Amino acid sequence: MADKCILLDHGSGGLASQELISSLFVKHLDNPTLRGLEDSAVLERPAGRLAFTTDSYVVDPIFFPGGDIGMLAVHGTINDLAMRGAQPLCLSLGLILEEGMALDDLERIVVSIAACCRDSGVPVVTGDTKVVPRGKGDKIFINTSGIGVLADGIDISSKNAREGDVILLSGTMGDHGITIMTRRAGISMQGRLESDTRPLHRLVQRLLEGLPGGVRTLRDPTRGGVATTLNEIAANSGLGVELREEFLPVRPQVRAACELLGLEPLYLANEGKLLAVVSADQAETALRIMRETDEGAEAAIIGRMVGGKAGRVVITTPLGGMRMVTPLHGEPLPRIC
Amino acid sequence: MADKCILLDHGSGGLASQELISSLFVKHLDNPTLRGLEDSAVLERPAGRLAFTTDSYVVDPIFFPGGDIGMLAVHGTINDLAMRGAQPLCLSLGLILEEGMALDDLERIVVSIAACCRDSGVPVVTGDTKVVPRGKGDKIFINTSGIGVLADGIDISSKNAREGDVILLSGTMGDHGITIMTRRAGISMQGRLESDTRPLHRLVQRLLEGLPGGVRTLRDPTRGGVATTLNEIAANSGLGVELREEFLPVRPQVRAACELLGLEPLYLANEGKLLAVVSADQAETALRIMRETDEGAEAAIIGRMVGGKAGRVVITTPLGGMRMVTPLHGEPLPRIC
Repeated sequence: MADKCILLDHGSGGLASQELISSLFVKHLDNPTLRGLEDSAVLERPAGRLAFTTDSYVVDPIFFPGGDIGMLAVHGTINDLAMRGAQPLCLSLGLILEEGMALDDLERIVVSIAACCRDSGVPVVTGDTKVVPRGKGDKIFINTSGIGVLADGIDISSKNAREGDVILLSGTMGDHGITIMTRRAGISMQGRLESDTRPLHRLVQRLLEGLPGGVRTLRDPTRGGVATTLNEIAANSGLGVELREEFLPVRPQVRAACELLGLEPLYLANEGKLLAVVSADQAETALRIMRETDEGAEAAIIGRMVGGKAGRVVITTPLGGMRMVTPLHGEPLPRIC
Repeated sequence: MADKCILLDHGSGGLASQELISSLFVKHLDNPTLRGLEDSAVLERPAGRLAFTTDSYVVDPIFFPGGDIGMLAVHGTINDLAMRGAQPLCLSLGLILEEGMALDDLERIVVSIAACCRDSGVPVVTGDTKVVPRGKGDKIFINTSGIGVLADGIDISSKNAREGDVILLSGTMGDHGITIMTRRAGISMQGRLESDTRPLHRLVQRLLEGLPGGVRTLRDPTRGGVATTLNEIAANSGLGVELREEFLPVRPQVRAACELLGLEPLYLANEGKLLAVVSADQAETALRIMRETDEGAEAAIIGRMVGGKAGRVVITTPLGGMRMVTPLHGEPLPRIC
């Protein structure tokens, strides 16, 4: 590429756009469907119902320990499909670039997207690039939408939780949120902090296969964290949630950073964790299945669904105290994902 | 809504986000699939292959004669699906809002999106909202992705054009581009200039029904205009394109504005027009079908596909002259859509 940075011309739809598409997107993301470069991608008739989701990614900084904005955009949308029990089929990729963005940074992000697509087996099949003038954007915003296929009989929803069901968390809380936060604050902590960004669709498939009919609800606690997601599950199911504080998995370095910054890990974003609500008799099986995977190696049973406290989340402390956990109110950190 | 403008908190994923979703998005865009508000929408198993497309909209100004950014976002993605011959099924809606955007403007756009969805019969089934700090965006950027269903036997592609095929344009050129351009330049013209934004999926269905097997290629000449789109058709089909200048439909007020600004209507963006390449023996039928519709009332036969000039577009003038029409090079106007 002759130019060193993004020009308005790259978003014109003319020659410069075509050069960007062939020298960058087709080069790294190539697959037979994308290669057509028509107005829409065409996909074979799917073998089930569809799941469809969209997310925009505006994280700042665009590169951070453990990942980058492209990685989030692939994993986040795959995970949203997986949380309905769907097998992710393909992604779209919509970029909004700021004039003056370094082409090297863009290429690094596209290479990262390509690696995530290969690793997760979910291709980008259609895309779009717009360029806005300097000062009207911030380097790069990414939208990924995704289509997944939902096998017959799968019905995963936050409405499905039942009284007595057990709640599992697939790993530690707050790794992504605290990584972005300390990086933005310029704080350096002892012990490595890095984002937990990763795809969860394989873990979900193992749960669905291992617990037929036993998985009620799957949610990934991203923005707003575990606290906000559990409040949504409580509200949608008309039940209460009881958590045991001592069971909540948090890395020591994340806890230390939270104490320093006065933050609660329950509200920090995660980008590679899921909450699963499963029937009580299958909870131990679910825990075993999770722990057998890389994604769920640090999984824990963290609480249960209870009657009589509809829509509320309470946490019991090791000393027997109890407190309410409300949904996130006020933005602790903009542009976390 | 108590607040008068968008706050960072509206993008937090917490309470303020939920308030925005219920008071604005669910209120205006309501449908059974969207109402679930899960991580993904679930759709019934489709009756054919899928078309999948994505587009981001960054137009400036966000309101303009004949439309707004929300209208473009619905129509543009519907049209990208229709250009493969697909019946649009549903849309996703991803918003990136700038802190400080007037809530009234956002509501006006959501109301417009809702009206376009109702009018076109294509619902928004899943969405996402992010907020970036003041000065890191520009009021609102919208991504819409869309899924369509492709009936068996339909194969519409810019590769399919054959020598001797006839090229039709469904109406006048440049209305959208010149409207945005004069508005941004603060120029007031005699005669009404307004965007041509509109959905084309119904026109496409009538063409497919009326010309079984006769429609080779459909493309909507948006960014880069008719000139750039025809160059892509020529390149992809390995044929040449011959246009007749006197057949190209342009409104008098658009022509006048183009002369004033030194612009060529062939390169101006359209948001409610399509180019159709059809077999020569069905060209008159195609023209009649188009002219019977509102969308195609001013349709014209503008040229044909020829051998021996692979990848090139030439235009003949009324005096018998000939000139090459190259793809757009250099950006005549950023943020046109």
